[in-house]
Amino acid sequence: MNNTLQRLSAIIESRKPANGGDPEKSYVARLLTKGDDAILKKIGEEATETVMAAKDARNGGDAAKIVSECADLWFHSLVLLAQFGLTPDDVMDELARREGISGIEEKAARKDILREADENQKN
Amino acid sequence: MNNTLQRLSAIIESRKPANGGDPEKSYVARLLTKGDDAILKKIGEEATETVMAAKDARNGGDAAKIVSECADLWFHSLVLLAQFGLTPDDVMDELARREGISGIEEKAARKDILREADENQKN
Amino acid sequence: MNNTLQRLSAIIESRKPANGGDPEKSYVARLLTKGDDAILKKIGEEATETVMAAKDARNGGDAAKIVSECADLWFHSLVLLAQFGLTPDDVMDELARREGISGIEEKAARKDILREADENQKN
Amino acid sequence: MNNTLQRLSAIIESRKPANGGDPEKSYVARLLTKGDDAILKKIGEEATETVMAAKDARNGGDAAKIVSECADLWFHSLVLLAQFGLTPDDVMDELARREGISGIEEKAARKDILREADENQKN
Repeated sequence: MNNTLQRLSAIIESRKPANGGDPEKSYVARLLTKGDDAILKKIGEEATETVMAAKDARNGGDAAKIVSECADLWFHSLVLLAQFGLTPDDVMDELARREGISGIEEKAARKDILREADENQKN
Repeated sequence: MNNTLQRLSAIIESRKPANGGDPEKSYVARLLTKGDDAILKKIGEEATETVMAAKDARNGGDAAKIVSECADLWFHSLVLLAQFGLTPDDVMDELARREGISGIEEKAARKDILREADENQKN
Repeated sequence: MNNTLQRLSAIIESRKPANGGDPEKSYVARLLTKGDDAILKKIGEEATETVMAAKDARNGGDAAKIVSECADLWFHSLVLLAQFGLTPDDVMDELARREGISGIEEKAARKDILREADENQKN
Repeated sequence: MNNTLQRLSAIIESRKPANGGDPEKSYVARLLTKGDDAILKKIGEEATETVMAAKDARNGGDAAKIVSECADLWFHSLVLLAQFGLTPDDVMDELARREGISGIEEKAARKDILREADENQKN
């Protein structure tokens, strides 16, 4: 699992124009060459497709479509990370840091408390 | 890394109401209890926040924000997978299956070719 | 202004295959023929592009890009409405109904209060 | 219809802090005070909710939900426009300019042709 993300990350890295990636031959090289906006559009697109796949799965569609769209979403996240000199290990470290999930839940809770404080100001 | 996703997945699993998760105490249990739409809204939100973080990073912002938003996006993807009885291993298997990236690039290329064929019909 | 949305809506209506719209010649006819998912993907895409245009405008980019992306977003909203037998008048009626904005603000406030109640349960 | 967008726009304008809008009392004033990111997050959220409402409508849900989410999406677009000193008239002018829809379809077609040219490079 770990290895899959790291292997993908290494392949994406090799597709950077600076590393010899050829936009004529490689989808990733082309995406990296087009730049930030092309990659970010894909993040938005794949998130929307993930939402649609989940709605479909709940109405008789194939749950495998969620897996496929989620793979697309994560894959393009890896391209985004590479574009900004970041790695999937950075994301895993962040997830592990928050972990115990208590960590993540604390973060989510903190956000909620801040939002709540904000909402309360309204009354 | 692998372990991080699997550990998070196991914790999310334990937050399911059927597994004793308490919506009063746990953010994840509450999200799972609210149901599909609440989780899907988070996917849309976190994707948008990832886009904004990348734009900010390109204009002097902190790249760590991209890592943080990407962690949020992946974390809520894990919650979505759990909601549909799926696991991060399913996504990793899909990514590995496509790999060589040639695999993924072939898929992307195939999509491009289909789209291209469609565009050509227009002329 | 009114007229613009109504005229666009009428043109989109005429692009429906049932009304003689030709997918070979018309982008809208092709989109309507592809169906719901193609239209919904465009909603997701144009929303993401609107977000990016706003971020760019704040960093020296052209604010006209926001107008252009917002026009794309609204235009594809009109296609979505047509696909479901709805009209821009329906949306205008809904906006007018909520108006005084107090109306809209009340709705948003109500949502906030519900969310707040939910957050409070957590503590 | 025209009037609805213009009236909403005027009300939103009056909610700007500089125009005396009070974040304690008004949802829009609060959103404008929070700034760009809060508004852009709403654009992303409402687009996702529009997608979900359409999916639901296709599976027995109420089509009125699409109208309601579309109203939310357009309303928050108006807030975004106001935040950047733009108006719904700017968007209507842009839509009218492209109109005949041929205009819009030409633009979409042009984009397609550019993308197509790009795809062709790949082969």
